[in-house]
Amino acid sequence: MYNKIKDLYQNTAQYAEKSVKIGGWIRTARASKGIGFIELNDGTFFRSVQIVFEGTLESSESSENSENSLNFDETAKLGVGACVTVTGRLVETPTAKQPFEIKATAIFLEGACPTNYPLQKKRHSYEFLRTIAHLRPRTNTFAAVFRVRSLASHAVHEFFQKRNFVYVHTPILTGNDGEGAGELFRVTTLKPDEKVEKNENGEPDYSKDFFGTKANLAVTGQLAVEPFIMGFRDVYTFGPIFRAEHSATTTHAAEFWMIEPEMAFADLDNYMETAEELVKYVINYVLANAPEEMEFFENWIEKGLIERLKSVASADFTRCSYTKAIELLQQAEKDGKKFEYPPKWGDDLQTEHERYICEEVYNAPVYLTDYPRDIKAFYMRQNEDGKTVAAADLLVPGVGELVGGSQREERLDKLEESIVHFKLNAEEYDWYLDLRRFGGVKHAGFGVGFERFLMYLTGMKNIRDVIAYPRAFGQMSY
Amino acid sequence: MYNKIKDLYQNTAQYAEKSVKIGGWIRTARASKGIGFIELNDGTFFRSVQIVFEGTLESSESSENSENSLNFDETAKLGVGACVTVTGRLVETPTAKQPFEIKATAIFLEGACPTNYPLQKKRHSYEFLRTIAHLRPRTNTFAAVFRVRSLASHAVHEFFQKRNFVYVHTPILTGNDGEGAGELFRVTTLKPDEKVEKNENGEPDYSKDFFGTKANLAVTGQLAVEPFIMGFRDVYTFGPIFRAEHSATTTHAAEFWMIEPEMAFADLDNYMETAEELVKYVINYVLANAPEEMEFFENWIEKGLIERLKSVASADFTRCSYTKAIELLQQAEKDGKKFEYPPKWGDDLQTEHERYICEEVYNAPVYLTDYPRDIKAFYMRQNEDGKTVAAADLLVPGVGELVGGSQREERLDKLEESIVHFKLNAEEYDWYLDLRRFGGVKHAGFGVGFERFLMYLTGMKNIRDVIAYPRAFGQMSY
Repeated sequence: MYNKIKDLYQNTAQYAEKSVKIGGWIRTARASKGIGFIELNDGTFFRSVQIVFEGTLESSESSENSENSLNFDETAKLGVGACVTVTGRLVETPTAKQPFEIKATAIFLEGACPTNYPLQKKRHSYEFLRTIAHLRPRTNTFAAVFRVRSLASHAVHEFFQKRNFVYVHTPILTGNDGEGAGELFRVTTLKPDEKVEKNENGEPDYSKDFFGTKANLAVTGQLAVEPFIMGFRDVYTFGPIFRAEHSATTTHAAEFWMIEPEMAFADLDNYMETAEELVKYVINYVLANAPEEMEFFENWIEKGLIERLKSVASADFTRCSYTKAIELLQQAEKDGKKFEYPPKWGDDLQTEHERYICEEVYNAPVYLTDYPRDIKAFYMRQNEDGKTVAAADLLVPGVGELVGGSQREERLDKLEESIVHFKLNAEEYDWYLDLRRFGGVKHAGFGVGFERFLMYLTGMKNIRDVIAYPRAFGQMSY
Repeated sequence: MYNKIKDLYQNTAQYAEKSVKIGGWIRTARASKGIGFIELNDGTFFRSVQIVFEGTLESSESSENSENSLNFDETAKLGVGACVTVTGRLVETPTAKQPFEIKATAIFLEGACPTNYPLQKKRHSYEFLRTIAHLRPRTNTFAAVFRVRSLASHAVHEFFQKRNFVYVHTPILTGNDGEGAGELFRVTTLKPDEKVEKNENGEPDYSKDFFGTKANLAVTGQLAVEPFIMGFRDVYTFGPIFRAEHSATTTHAAEFWMIEPEMAFADLDNYMETAEELVKYVINYVLANAPEEMEFFENWIEKGLIERLKSVASADFTRCSYTKAIELLQQAEKDGKKFEYPPKWGDDLQTEHERYICEEVYNAPVYLTDYPRDIKAFYMRQNEDGKTVAAADLLVPGVGELVGGSQREERLDKLEESIVHFKLNAEEYDWYLDLRRFGGVKHAGFGVGFERFLMYLTGMKNIRDVIAYPRAFGQMSY
């Protein structure tokens, strides 16, 4: 049985002067004059442990592992990245930088690491590290990123499960084009040199393809999760989503994860309150459960990160209508503020506009509400004014839009009219209209791009650096 | 603010004689002689609440919702499936079947439900309900199934997070063919009437497709999660997986979820212990957190279900080598047992064989270990005998294989030899070999088909009845 470095750090006193056994990977190693030091990381904890070894290393012939036991000189030659098992005594070092170290009694080689190891001690560019996605979790930065990703993900589940939301695994394969939210990937089992034949009307005839109908990768889980509110009242989906956008910017990925809750007997206010609680819950969870990682981001990725997160976690999120935001922007323009795109009622807000409202006007998280109908999705609930819908986007300083959501149109006639208005294929949404035909209910929901949230939590600036194996236009490795 | 029925059941005394407000859907309704009864379900709890209404219903003119308020006759006409909001007084009924009822003071219509509602009170076949996947969560059976699915999913996360495993979101889009584990779906942005051209060597030239290379849907997350053990020691992935199998049986789906943990410094025994703990944890979690749903399955889906699950949760999982299993099967044959396929060393075990070993020999969960190399995956660790690998499948009574896993081959030369032996494309696995070239480590992992586990937990007999929107060969609706 191996001890875990996390446990040694958290219960040091209990292990003091006791024999421990740890397995891990060498981060740094040096030796001279009969004494050597290894920084060993076992993956259970962000911090490494200092191993001290001397000429007294046993060859441990009695061990089952004896052929792999190393003497002082062999240990001294171990390179960065090598995997070893160490047995030794834990010694408290209250005056040193680390609270304890391990005096090795025996060291066993698990896996050597030759000098062509791509991750030598020097710092590497993120761009280079993206080309070795299978090795970068061994670096400090990506060990921190992916642990925070795991914890944030669990925080999301905990938040909803505690509130009795039911997690629905919405499908990835879908015949629906999902509100026209983005470019679609098509899925097929036809051979690469086969194409879909046309039927007599000149339309694609999918009868020879796997599903006998068109199949796309989902661009949202929202439409599919919505029917479940009639079974469970409060539900959410959290899974991968696909957009075939032909751009490879720092914020675009072809595959990413979305959090999408949906709530019956809920209106726009209920959505905004729930999303605010979610954002705060995840921030607090990550700060509490990954303090070492968050300190690393603070020190190496973004100064002021922790203060920024703490202030959001304790802020009251404010609210401002789209219409008022346009007025504020136009007033700012009159007062000499320069925008690349002149703010105009009816146009979608540009990042420069969102940043001005969020960072210069409020300097706090702010919900922009009641957008013009024509720049939002067909299922959003029409307001009384006939021009706007009960939608709201949460803007946060430094990132812009973090959450988008709305109250949904529960009135059958209004929704039917919207399907025509937005020139959608009515037949494709017939099942969705059933939700209004049979026991319809006032409801609301929202979506959080999980990677954008992670960038906000970690300070990482490129979406490809918070995804295990990023996929984007022209970019996919194994 | 709405009260939740779950809360009313769990804290009945506290609400006694108080005014409450609940919103939900009518399961049954009847009225006569000035008194009516509604079974109302709000989705927060498996059980419904009895609403009693009389001629004294207020028209609630003062309410913002007044135009929707219903009098006695209007309420009496409400059909199954209609959505209403009820305000009333909670009255304890200690001598009745239900611990309390609500004496309605006002009832508001949220959404009517006309008589063409497909879910009338009578029982429907699962086959029919599959055609209305957007409505079936409103039935008792599917409300139970999908709540258990949500809870089991959360139990999986809790199990691993408590043990410091890091959750990795492995990619769905992959250029890898994943150990040849199944038929692949191809992903493309070429138009349906476009095909992939061939290059001068006659091979598909993907340069005009989105990624510039072939792109498939993942058939496993295992290979992609494995590198993360070098960053975190213990990791898992839990997400959708795709197999384009041209069969539509009760156990095949084109899209399903897999739980795939991977552990460094771990051998076959460690895998078996961890998987045993996981299975027990999830069973206990579901029994504790969904007692009403589990009782429903016991009464309506499978008699003896709860006893079966409890016995597994308290059993010591036993172990039996593949070689010994073959001997037992052959002995049984000599003793007169008839098998459709004669058991023979080197052949894969058939379901009839697995059931005999598991149900007739042991009548308990049993790990079959050390399978012949040639019927298992290339990455499994070769045993000393040169014929078998350190693999194990967990068989459980009634279902057969529930978990499959192995110790992985950490020796570079052996793994290289296996890639040749299994006629795989060495170039495609070069990155995977890096995990053995640089700081390799003894490790093990396993996979659990989440739907199969759910069928085991609920007694449901068709995989399509534990998936929100099932996809299979020739079958996909919206």
